[in-house]
Amino acid sequence: MAMTGVLRPGHAQIRVLDIEEGVKHYGKVLGLIETGRDSQGRVYFKAWDERDHHSVILREADSAGIDFFGFKVSDQATLDKLDRDLQAYGVKTERIPAGELLETGERVRFEVPSGHLIELYWEKSDYGNDDTYTNPPPWTDDAERGIAPIRLDHCLLYGPDIEKVQDIFVNVLGFYLVEHVIMEDGKTDLAIWLSCSIKAHDIAFVRHPEPGKLHHVSFLLESWEKVLRAADIMSMNRVSIDIGPTRHGITRGTTIYAFDPSGNRFETFCGGYQCYPDWKPIRWTWDEVGAGIFYHDRKLNERFLTVVS
Amino acid sequence: MAMTGVLRPGHAQIRVLDIEEGVKHYGKVLGLIETGRDSQGRVYFKAWDERDHHSVILREADSAGIDFFGFKVSDQATLDKLDRDLQAYGVKTERIPAGELLETGERVRFEVPSGHLIELYWEKSDYGNDDTYTNPPPWTDDAERGIAPIRLDHCLLYGPDIEKVQDIFVNVLGFYLVEHVIMEDGKTDLAIWLSCSIKAHDIAFVRHPEPGKLHHVSFLLESWEKVLRAADIMSMNRVSIDIGPTRHGITRGTTIYAFDPSGNRFETFCGGYQCYPDWKPIRWTWDEVGAGIFYHDRKLNERFLTVVS
Amino acid sequence: MAMTGVLRPGHAQIRVLDIEEGVKHYGKVLGLIETGRDSQGRVYFKAWDERDHHSVILREADSAGIDFFGFKVSDQATLDKLDRDLQAYGVKTERIPAGELLETGERVRFEVPSGHLIELYWEKSDYGNDDTYTNPPPWTDDAERGIAPIRLDHCLLYGPDIEKVQDIFVNVLGFYLVEHVIMEDGKTDLAIWLSCSIKAHDIAFVRHPEPGKLHHVSFLLESWEKVLRAADIMSMNRVSIDIGPTRHGITRGTTIYAFDPSGNRFETFCGGYQCYPDWKPIRWTWDEVGAGIFYHDRKLNERFLTVVS
Amino acid sequence: MAMTGVLRPGHAQIRVLDIEEGVKHYGKVLGLIETGRDSQGRVYFKAWDERDHHSVILREADSAGIDFFGFKVSDQATLDKLDRDLQAYGVKTERIPAGELLETGERVRFEVPSGHLIELYWEKSDYGNDDTYTNPPPWTDDAERGIAPIRLDHCLLYGPDIEKVQDIFVNVLGFYLVEHVIMEDGKTDLAIWLSCSIKAHDIAFVRHPEPGKLHHVSFLLESWEKVLRAADIMSMNRVSIDIGPTRHGITRGTTIYAFDPSGNRFETFCGGYQCYPDWKPIRWTWDEVGAGIFYHDRKLNERFLTVVS
Repeated sequence: MAMTGVLRPGHAQIRVLDIEEGVKHYGKVLGLIETGRDSQGRVYFKAWDERDHHSVILREADSAGIDFFGFKVSDQATLDKLDRDLQAYGVKTERIPAGELLETGERVRFEVPSGHLIELYWEKSDYGNDDTYTNPPPWTDDAERGIAPIRLDHCLLYGPDIEKVQDIFVNVLGFYLVEHVIMEDGKTDLAIWLSCSIKAHDIAFVRHPEPGKLHHVSFLLESWEKVLRAADIMSMNRVSIDIGPTRHGITRGTTIYAFDPSGNRFETFCGGYQCYPDWKPIRWTWDEVGAGIFYHDRKLNERFLTVVS
Repeated sequence: MAMTGVLRPGHAQIRVLDIEEGVKHYGKVLGLIETGRDSQGRVYFKAWDERDHHSVILREADSAGIDFFGFKVSDQATLDKLDRDLQAYGVKTERIPAGELLETGERVRFEVPSGHLIELYWEKSDYGNDDTYTNPPPWTDDAERGIAPIRLDHCLLYGPDIEKVQDIFVNVLGFYLVEHVIMEDGKTDLAIWLSCSIKAHDIAFVRHPEPGKLHHVSFLLESWEKVLRAADIMSMNRVSIDIGPTRHGITRGTTIYAFDPSGNRFETFCGGYQCYPDWKPIRWTWDEVGAGIFYHDRKLNERFLTVVS
Repeated sequence: MAMTGVLRPGHAQIRVLDIEEGVKHYGKVLGLIETGRDSQGRVYFKAWDERDHHSVILREADSAGIDFFGFKVSDQATLDKLDRDLQAYGVKTERIPAGELLETGERVRFEVPSGHLIELYWEKSDYGNDDTYTNPPPWTDDAERGIAPIRLDHCLLYGPDIEKVQDIFVNVLGFYLVEHVIMEDGKTDLAIWLSCSIKAHDIAFVRHPEPGKLHHVSFLLESWEKVLRAADIMSMNRVSIDIGPTRHGITRGTTIYAFDPSGNRFETFCGGYQCYPDWKPIRWTWDEVGAGIFYHDRKLNERFLTVVS
Repeated sequence: MAMTGVLRPGHAQIRVLDIEEGVKHYGKVLGLIETGRDSQGRVYFKAWDERDHHSVILREADSAGIDFFGFKVSDQATLDKLDRDLQAYGVKTERIPAGELLETGERVRFEVPSGHLIELYWEKSDYGNDDTYTNPPPWTDDAERGIAPIRLDHCLLYGPDIEKVQDIFVNVLGFYLVEHVIMEDGKTDLAIWLSCSIKAHDIAFVRHPEPGKLHHVSFLLESWEKVLRAADIMSMNRVSIDIGPTRHGITRGTTIYAFDPSGNRFETFCGGYQCYPDWKPIRWTWDEVGAGIFYHDRKLNERFLTVVS
């Protein structure tokens, strides 16, 4: 007990229009560490402070967006149980064989009603070795190569039927609702933030007519000063910044939204409080949604609701 | 699943030699919010960003130290199951009736082999109200009254038989080992850091001949700049600082150790990485224990191993 | 020698449309300390870490803007010499008698070709007392009341003929050029940053057809984390933010621009490098002026060039 | 006027016991940029944000310590005038020919009563080029190589007769007293902090029986977070830390004292307020000198008063 079942976001496969341009962005500018390339030409990355073999996979394609978002679960029994529970709930699942992603075991893949592919898996190689976990320094040179986030943290997905998505994440996968935004009608959710841990969000959804869209994949930084450093590095490298540095009212995180060369939005953020499943969800009313999303400006920019990949 | 069972440290009852001096320290200097006093004369406090009625209880006594340290669990069924599991393991448990602590439900109390009283409970009143959880600002004036930690975070206890303690926390309560320090013999643990979440520590133990001792109760701050502010406020109020601001190698947290007027050590800290139960524990060897405890000085001060309450 | 002549910006008299609304903004939200009101109804403020009696004076008027910006000089002899030098240069000067501003000695006032009134003075009462300067703590409660800048730092003024203004500030008053922006023609200055110390700017000018306009008065904060805190407090108090938190390329300062209730822009900023008069000025070319003004966005918002008071 | 006469600390020549060990420390660990070596075997360094050719010169010798500390003045006329003024005051001066230090013009050298050699000069080559000063980014990769201070900032020297030293710095060189510590007798100064700018110290002296001793040479960092980073890098490189991270009461700076491999103390610090010559000096009484030097501990460690090189 305590931390069981779904542990954390483990990987996002992102489509880029030009793989080498993508490698330059995610490797040199964002500062992820390239850990492998597979026979399909996909390129694998991990953040400096992640232990598993990879968290970001780039795939060259004709359109930007996210192929799938995967969560690591605690063990084989959990993987099997969640697979059965999903099927019992009426969600069709598929098994992707071990090795289809480098250094990764069998994955259970399923589509949620918002049109996104979600995966569960429990095995991925530890990239470190015994030395890594004996008397380690608090950080290494890799922590200052590029923006150098600590980890892939969460993603925000756009699509329809988010209440159905919430039901699956909460009642089958064991997540809980942390915050939500209510629409003008005073009852329908515009957006939901869900956690499987004590992070303010492990995944989030915004209601949107078109299914399967990506708003952003998010990477964690260590401090507000690192957020400034990230913005500086973005400018030095002519990365297109959407908004920030600023603060979200929702989750309280400090943040920058920016775009990769293919037009996929990504976030580098810090903070956000730590929450627990016994906490009452925080509710944002329609008149305050601007402050909820961008606390300083107190208004949405149009791009927030319309530009997705 | 995900976050189940034991959720988090919920309260510490601390003995102080003079209750009003204690109230001044924990209320005005540390900046906790007083939330109640009971018929026994105990005084209750919560941190500004905590939701439950209290996390620190002060009791006037002839000697300093900790009476008990309590964890909130997810629900009644979990409380009952953990009680049964403890008994099945051979740990004697006791039920403390609801209301014995203000605004708190029934507690399951037991002694671990290190000589400390640990409690489990699942009900404690939410101190906020509906307004608190609708369109909230990221912080309020209370976040700047005194040192103003976010929450009670963990404690470090000194006592014998810590491997037996670890066995109970891991195999009965669902915690996992995050880091440990190995003694000169290359095999016996000097100290263990245990988590029931993704915090680098929810509780920790150091091997010590005398049972039931408190090394420190720890309070979380939001940034390294808040650690500096805490040190400044300590100096302004003539709080006796043990060490810091500095960094721990273990958990990477940035920290100050200081003493309350009764001689109980407390910590105000920030950071520390977030970990998961599938991670290999980090091991500190005897020759590097100094850097593990105080990363900058790379040596223990004598007080770390000898001064407890 | 060393620091002589003109020492620093000493006061700005700002016009507000409603004095009590202004007092609330500059006192409660910005967190300046009210130090007096005079028979004309003007209200005086100082920042918590300033020593002189005031740095901001509010005057109720029908239009927003700045009445005058004053510099403290080192002594009476300097005041008299600068007055003579100004007149010799062809600048008409006027003596404002001691006491016209509370706790302030005689001022020498003159208009520069951009249409702004500049003042020099050397006497203003120290607001502290002997105790203030014996064993002081590094900060006091006032440092956390509202945004609580350290001091009035500089102002940016809009008007014509800025090369003539520069000539007076440099060749009569002893300032030096720190940075400048060059217009599309590759030779005319659009903007100039001038220092009389080692600050990256004590005053700055942007070329503008209309004389005597105020772009912003600027207040110094201690850290980038205080800039975030300032933005949070602005949002909490519904202060209209123009842009930020962000960084200027010019001077490297981290910044927020916002508006007081009368529409006067003000800046709360941190940082900026320290410079010396033997340094070659930094030059921004027209194609990079966006990055110079707002380093992260790399483009001017229209308000920067058009909204002044 | 404004900034005239003596501008700033320009160089310190430091004696090290082993030149390559010194180069490794000042180059790789402290992160200064090596800019030259001369025929005497001296090695020259500048900080990444300094413009002049060098600020630190290492000389191999049998004992650690400081050979001389030099100030840049505004021009030849100032150099000549200060030379005459020093002689008129009774201080013997010596002219060191241009080129004796690489890329440096003629220097005026003199000994102050504390037994230290001080130098004045006005010419030193700018290390940058035109490109450096056109549309510059706020920082470059060099700002993250090693500890990477912004500049040589000041030094603290130990020796006798500091009131005589103060008289020369104030009445001949144009410095002013910013803070001072008074001894048990209530009148004699134990220590003095002197500024020729708006920095809280450009040079400082502590009364000490032995002449010509170095307490520390100090390097400026940009933030308290960079102070933490500096302490981490020191630990990673086994640099011996004297004290810190902590705060000085005097000047309010946040600081680390540490030792180079030869035993010369150096400081990496941030902050400290900005002051002006019209300000009343801050006075520390004997009973509060501990808080003045180390604000958090409120007591001197013995090394502060006894270990010098």
